[in-house]
Amino acid sequence: MRNDSQIKIFSGSSNQEFTKKVCDFLKIPVNKSEVITFSEGNTYVKIGEKVRGMDVYIVQTIGLNPNNEFVELLFWIDAFKRSCVNSVTAIIPYFGYAKADKKDEPRVSIRARVCADCLETAGVDRVVTMDLHSPQIQGFFRKPVDHLYAANIFCDYIKGMGISNYVIASPDEGFTKNARYYSNKLGVPLVIGNKQRPLHDEKAEILGIIGDVDKKTALIVDDFTISCGTLTEIADTLKENGAEEVYAFVSHALLTKKGIDALNGSVIRKLYTTDTVNNPDILNNEKIEIISVAGLFGKAIKIIHERDSLSELFI
Amino acid sequence: MRNDSQIKIFSGSSNQEFTKKVCDFLKIPVNKSEVITFSEGNTYVKIGEKVRGMDVYIVQTIGLNPNNEFVELLFWIDAFKRSCVNSVTAIIPYFGYAKADKKDEPRVSIRARVCADCLETAGVDRVVTMDLHSPQIQGFFRKPVDHLYAANIFCDYIKGMGISNYVIASPDEGFTKNARYYSNKLGVPLVIGNKQRPLHDEKAEILGIIGDVDKKTALIVDDFTISCGTLTEIADTLKENGAEEVYAFVSHALLTKKGIDALNGSVIRKLYTTDTVNNPDILNNEKIEIISVAGLFGKAIKIIHERDSLSELFI
Amino acid sequence: MRNDSQIKIFSGSSNQEFTKKVCDFLKIPVNKSEVITFSEGNTYVKIGEKVRGMDVYIVQTIGLNPNNEFVELLFWIDAFKRSCVNSVTAIIPYFGYAKADKKDEPRVSIRARVCADCLETAGVDRVVTMDLHSPQIQGFFRKPVDHLYAANIFCDYIKGMGISNYVIASPDEGFTKNARYYSNKLGVPLVIGNKQRPLHDEKAEILGIIGDVDKKTALIVDDFTISCGTLTEIADTLKENGAEEVYAFVSHALLTKKGIDALNGSVIRKLYTTDTVNNPDILNNEKIEIISVAGLFGKAIKIIHERDSLSELFI
Amino acid sequence: MRNDSQIKIFSGSSNQEFTKKVCDFLKIPVNKSEVITFSEGNTYVKIGEKVRGMDVYIVQTIGLNPNNEFVELLFWIDAFKRSCVNSVTAIIPYFGYAKADKKDEPRVSIRARVCADCLETAGVDRVVTMDLHSPQIQGFFRKPVDHLYAANIFCDYIKGMGISNYVIASPDEGFTKNARYYSNKLGVPLVIGNKQRPLHDEKAEILGIIGDVDKKTALIVDDFTISCGTLTEIADTLKENGAEEVYAFVSHALLTKKGIDALNGSVIRKLYTTDTVNNPDILNNEKIEIISVAGLFGKAIKIIHERDSLSELFI
Amino acid sequence: MRNDSQIKIFSGSSNQEFTKKVCDFLKIPVNKSEVITFSEGNTYVKIGEKVRGMDVYIVQTIGLNPNNEFVELLFWIDAFKRSCVNSVTAIIPYFGYAKADKKDEPRVSIRARVCADCLETAGVDRVVTMDLHSPQIQGFFRKPVDHLYAANIFCDYIKGMGISNYVIASPDEGFTKNARYYSNKLGVPLVIGNKQRPLHDEKAEILGIIGDVDKKTALIVDDFTISCGTLTEIADTLKENGAEEVYAFVSHALLTKKGIDALNGSVIRKLYTTDTVNNPDILNNEKIEIISVAGLFGKAIKIIHERDSLSELFI
Amino acid sequence: MRNDSQIKIFSGSSNQEFTKKVCDFLKIPVNKSEVITFSEGNTYVKIGEKVRGMDVYIVQTIGLNPNNEFVELLFWIDAFKRSCVNSVTAIIPYFGYAKADKKDEPRVSIRARVCADCLETAGVDRVVTMDLHSPQIQGFFRKPVDHLYAANIFCDYIKGMGISNYVIASPDEGFTKNARYYSNKLGVPLVIGNKQRPLHDEKAEILGIIGDVDKKTALIVDDFTISCGTLTEIADTLKENGAEEVYAFVSHALLTKKGIDALNGSVIRKLYTTDTVNNPDILNNEKIEIISVAGLFGKAIKIIHERDSLSELFI
Repeated sequence: MRNDSQIKIFSGSSNQEFTKKVCDFLKIPVNKSEVITFSEGNTYVKIGEKVRGMDVYIVQTIGLNPNNEFVELLFWIDAFKRSCVNSVTAIIPYFGYAKADKKDEPRVSIRARVCADCLETAGVDRVVTMDLHSPQIQGFFRKPVDHLYAANIFCDYIKGMGISNYVIASPDEGFTKNARYYSNKLGVPLVIGNKQRPLHDEKAEILGIIGDVDKKTALIVDDFTISCGTLTEIADTLKENGAEEVYAFVSHALLTKKGIDALNGSVIRKLYTTDTVNNPDILNNEKIEIISVAGLFGKAIKIIHERDSLSELFI
Repeated sequence: MRNDSQIKIFSGSSNQEFTKKVCDFLKIPVNKSEVITFSEGNTYVKIGEKVRGMDVYIVQTIGLNPNNEFVELLFWIDAFKRSCVNSVTAIIPYFGYAKADKKDEPRVSIRARVCADCLETAGVDRVVTMDLHSPQIQGFFRKPVDHLYAANIFCDYIKGMGISNYVIASPDEGFTKNARYYSNKLGVPLVIGNKQRPLHDEKAEILGIIGDVDKKTALIVDDFTISCGTLTEIADTLKENGAEEVYAFVSHALLTKKGIDALNGSVIRKLYTTDTVNNPDILNNEKIEIISVAGLFGKAIKIIHERDSLSELFI
Repeated sequence: MRNDSQIKIFSGSSNQEFTKKVCDFLKIPVNKSEVITFSEGNTYVKIGEKVRGMDVYIVQTIGLNPNNEFVELLFWIDAFKRSCVNSVTAIIPYFGYAKADKKDEPRVSIRARVCADCLETAGVDRVVTMDLHSPQIQGFFRKPVDHLYAANIFCDYIKGMGISNYVIASPDEGFTKNARYYSNKLGVPLVIGNKQRPLHDEKAEILGIIGDVDKKTALIVDDFTISCGTLTEIADTLKENGAEEVYAFVSHALLTKKGIDALNGSVIRKLYTTDTVNNPDILNNEKIEIISVAGLFGKAIKIIHERDSLSELFI
Repeated sequence: MRNDSQIKIFSGSSNQEFTKKVCDFLKIPVNKSEVITFSEGNTYVKIGEKVRGMDVYIVQTIGLNPNNEFVELLFWIDAFKRSCVNSVTAIIPYFGYAKADKKDEPRVSIRARVCADCLETAGVDRVVTMDLHSPQIQGFFRKPVDHLYAANIFCDYIKGMGISNYVIASPDEGFTKNARYYSNKLGVPLVIGNKQRPLHDEKAEILGIIGDVDKKTALIVDDFTISCGTLTEIADTLKENGAEEVYAFVSHALLTKKGIDALNGSVIRKLYTTDTVNNPDILNNEKIEIISVAGLFGKAIKIIHERDSLSELFI
Repeated sequence: MRNDSQIKIFSGSSNQEFTKKVCDFLKIPVNKSEVITFSEGNTYVKIGEKVRGMDVYIVQTIGLNPNNEFVELLFWIDAFKRSCVNSVTAIIPYFGYAKADKKDEPRVSIRARVCADCLETAGVDRVVTMDLHSPQIQGFFRKPVDHLYAANIFCDYIKGMGISNYVIASPDEGFTKNARYYSNKLGVPLVIGNKQRPLHDEKAEILGIIGDVDKKTALIVDDFTISCGTLTEIADTLKENGAEEVYAFVSHALLTKKGIDALNGSVIRKLYTTDTVNNPDILNNEKIEIISVAGLFGKAIKIIHERDSLSELFI
Repeated sequence: MRNDSQIKIFSGSSNQEFTKKVCDFLKIPVNKSEVITFSEGNTYVKIGEKVRGMDVYIVQTIGLNPNNEFVELLFWIDAFKRSCVNSVTAIIPYFGYAKADKKDEPRVSIRARVCADCLETAGVDRVVTMDLHSPQIQGFFRKPVDHLYAANIFCDYIKGMGISNYVIASPDEGFTKNARYYSNKLGVPLVIGNKQRPLHDEKAEILGIIGDVDKKTALIVDDFTISCGTLTEIADTLKENGAEEVYAFVSHALLTKKGIDALNGSVIRKLYTTDTVNNPDILNNEKIEIISVAGLFGKAIKIIHERDSLSELFI
């Protein structure tokens, strides 16, 4: 219903530039909204336009200030529901707590489920996100989750790079299934890092490489990076195994300053990533190139609004 | 049931010293727990002891980092529930979002209700808090809320100050009902500020004082202060109306640096407050005195644990 | 959606005349329905027309027979939902249990929250009401509540009365915020009664008047009255302080016979109220004038049905 | 747990004498509570004793003022839950809305399900009731329902009446299954009225009797009566078919004045009923004898409190 | 809304032929879907077409493989909801667990309520079914249930049979209310079997016949049959009481092989039933004639889709 | 609470022998219960003993008849809750639908989440299971899930086998994390199969082995097997890579007849598995050895019942 009506896209405070690009792609304005952080820290949100009966889209990544961004999103959803919208779709380009998806130690929280439940309690009707850490997280929601992938956009980019004799490198076994998608799509071999990461200390140890990279260009793919620890170590190992050049393609760029220093001092020629996380530290860095996925999200919103099928996005 | 068992009190990261004082009052140790903030901002919690089948108490104020503190509390509750506790009681000395309790503009969120719903979704069984901004907030919860008051502790303190010929001053009409409790309990007159505060700009305008303060000491009472704006303006007005000395008693101290400067430059002789908010900026300030309510919370926890009645605390 | 379709308004048994006036304002018929009270007291409701897939509005005040009226409303909502309506909006001109909004004593119920939860359990999609006792009550609902105010209608009426040299009088501090709206809108001073009411005995004691009423006409404003106790006492006090004439404007008229006698014997010249409560005792009383808010509700329903914004009603 | 603790029984306003008898049976006092009906009709409840952590029982029949009694029960349950009881069991000797258990016309409510849902929303943990109109109503609750029967008490009484050559008469097919229980238990024949009742007009038409009553005493059994219409008509038919004397045994006595007049003018020698409904009109009527089921409820409460099995009550 | 859009009907695995007939009636194709039973027994479902934003209908009887069919239906509903349909209506021609609607013994489940709750948890928006074992089962659902009846179709058929001097026979008291509908509609007398069935052993005992069948044709009507036990016994009794010919009309045919043998060896001339249950054993049996209710369901779906009233189906 | 009371363990129909072994381990009897499958397929359950107020454990694997077993478990939980137990813990040795944990194709159901939600809707208070297909599945439940592992029991067994010069083989990348646990615990190397499995056709293709198995014994570890396809293929590949002998350790044995034939004809010397699935086909097969985990579940139940910590089981 209402297919003919204009799409209403609002932006939370966490990634206003990204929302602008999504709206530019769709050739519509960003709708008006206001966020205030009071001096004692409380967050306040206010919708700036009439929304009664409409299908609205609120874009809010849960990135480098995850708690502020998540709570703000809860307030947005509540504000929309109390304003009698027909439906509210949360566009969460990066869902930061998704990686907290299991109880791998006794007496901890499954934080991704807590976040999913709170979003549903606040009243979200649908979620659109990209490259969740594990596909099971869709099942943490009762509401539909449209799950997008950066892979096709990265593959198109790689094809345009004009490199030959290259392999896709998965940094560890956990990401192999996704990395294989790249190698199949691009028709190149896959190599796998054999890595082990102790609990929570963010130091990773690379044990070796499965597969042949000798005299080849290696393109590491991964879903996110914070400290570049895993990336630089596998890059070193790839080099040690004869790789000529190493590039990295990472969906979500949570790079801290420490991570950027690590990247800068590493053998990685360039890190390609997307704009799902508003990370000012990675701008104007010669080693980092940002490939926008705003068009991907724009297309998804248009398809959803027109009640069409998202499958075409996955071809 | 389990009345004879030891009380298990855990501390969130927002007020560990307060929890320590509560436990010291009860002559028990703080139970072990761990909070980590990862470098990309995610919060992680881990219970450090066996809790299966127990009635546990988690102390976490929602104060000057409200979003971090609130989300951390959600994760604590989930961690306890998934660890099969019998019940989890959230001890929230200051519930920062309580003041966001109404939709006084179109298209905003009722943030206190969102927080209440999320706490219940996470699984909280009971909440203990102090001096909510409005008593209706208890009704935002389906679960029982034990509501404590600083008033008796402040009144006892005032009696011990040895002052005479004083009045209680309510800064505005909204707080009059509470201020009247003080004036009745202490047997002294009540005066009321006639104030108006425009939306969200934290600047308040005092119009006048209702009642006689000439040649009297005035004790302003309020539930919280951030910028000291209201307090200093009513203090000025009290002075202009002949008050000899002005003191302030405020339950929750959210004073920012700006607020402290305002206090220091004001006619207020001293601001008395409590330790519900972990606010390092107010320590070692000659004009600020902190009266602990840890004993009040300790008593409440003991009564709850022994399935006794909290009424005695309110006499 | 369905904006073009006719509005479907049904009337519960508590205020059929009011519903008729709302429908007359909208130039539509009241839709057919039937309520039976069986001889042993059970209430039975039956929708008299086809409603599948429609957005329906059921008008039912919770007034002088609050329990019957509330339970009947639950049954209406269930009957509509089981008849596959698209949405059911409860139009509750006066929501009688709203004033039971806090736990101001130990071991009592927060009855307004119980009512809100039951309405939502029965399946209500939206609530429209007027002059709730406290604005926090909107937060007792998860579903949207459109909150109307009699103030603008009363202000328009007052402007037409042709009086000059008058003040607005708030009977107590609790109503001051609302009373100030009148004084601002009308550009006249505000005076405040300084009242204290012991628990539940409906006897109120007026201590004094804050502000100057000498030789002025005083217009008392309040949200509801039952026994006229507060009104007559503040009226007396206003007179004692020099007021020349006293009128009262009260949103909801729950006046019992005793209350009417009190009004008749009082110094109040006239009580202006609305038709939100079906109160036959107040008809044909020279001292009582009823100003209909049926048009206000009619406008609100039209705006909601057309998915427009209610803000214009609040200007 | 807490098996050794004293049973806490509170009484709603609808049947305080019945509660007293239950407590007398158990040799415990009725616990303190207060109900106020304010002059505008609102109901207010207050628990008069400490209940934190306890298993409490609230006795409230939903009888001749069903809406008031039902709403009051919701408030009791909420008051107990907000007072941190361990569990609250609603003892509803007669659950008046149970007979509204189906949608036998289009566009009506299933009122018994609405009531069940609201009781659960308010927080009830268990329900104990007697002789529901249909056994399916247990399935309207998610919470456990302990369903008691008057049949054994009535059968014991009948055995003591010293009559012989008698039959059990079911007024219609709907009650035959229950009536057969009596005939089996007492070892006497069963006859069945062949009745049809038009919708809602409370006039019933008896078509005939299935079975032989010639020269026999007939004991009609039924679950409730309001107008005595069914009872008097089947009694007439039984007489016409040769019955010598006719008695009636009815679980719940909702007799209106009209019903009592009908009974007094009828061929029924005596109506035996129970005290589940507080019906002052039936006291001191020579044709009506009340057989208390307070002991049955007392036994049930004791068994529940001691976590024993209720099966013995059904033998 | 969307009245003009094409109806989307999907078929579960339990009755694909029936769905085909429903769609043929509506002159639309069955929409594409796939069900796989993996070799270890797990059921897997996949929607074969675009459904986002649509109102879909999934036809799945819960018949002779009730657990597989019920679980498959849960998965269908979840698949549709996660595919962002606007609504999903479960068309359950026969709802097998409906007869498990009460707790007639201690310590058993009310299985019909469990099934209703799970269907709602999975996300069903509406249920359409036929001839539930008791009308109360509608109240086990919070969501609307459209309840169809085979009676009119059977009555039309009976009128066309050209028989005269016949009666309707209810096998027991429980079905009398429904049987009376037939006798009223057809203008013929009603006779009632006087049956008692011990718990769960599927052996029934007929005690007698109420009413006159001498030299008449008797048409037994019932809601379902498994073993034909009840039917053959009442048929024998009817014969013993002088009936010339006996036919049976049964809504749902769950006949096992044993039941068919019983039928074949019985005095029943013919069993008329419907196609709500996919029962291959009853095909090609001379004594069994299947009267399709696919048109009835087709009409109901059309009416629901066009947001019209179902009442016409019940005339 | 009730720690001193006897443990109450009931058995569903899917694995009564396993329950017997658990109870033997705990030296208690299996409590009485009854399951009937009626001739038309409906499942009926009845608890055979008094359970009011107790903490009960119902053992029901969801194995080779997953839909029957799952629905039966729902009915058990409902029966226990309606019988007023204090808590019901579902002991699900193998949770068959767990592997349906993601939406890896468009328009399918996340069946594991549907099952989790239905178990919680029915009223389960806690789940105990073993070797879930992915750890995220714990997050599909809001209620606590105690997750046991066969690994320690298998490791102890392996140590007792007296083999040397062996490696642990993970059949694919997905299981590597678990396989590494074995290799670390046993202090032997890990090798990884490099496998790809097309959707749903149960044919797997092994691409190679990562790591050195030449002249070594290889112990394949996996969570479950149905057709032995993966196992036999990796076994062949291991052999081709020089492995001397190949054994397999698989937690859950869903082997179909086809799977057993595959095993018998394979190079695998022996398949070690557990008794979580009642699979009569695997008994008396020389190549299959069943290592009971009944003691592991018995220990877990004891620890839960005594409110102790399960951590010791994981050391």
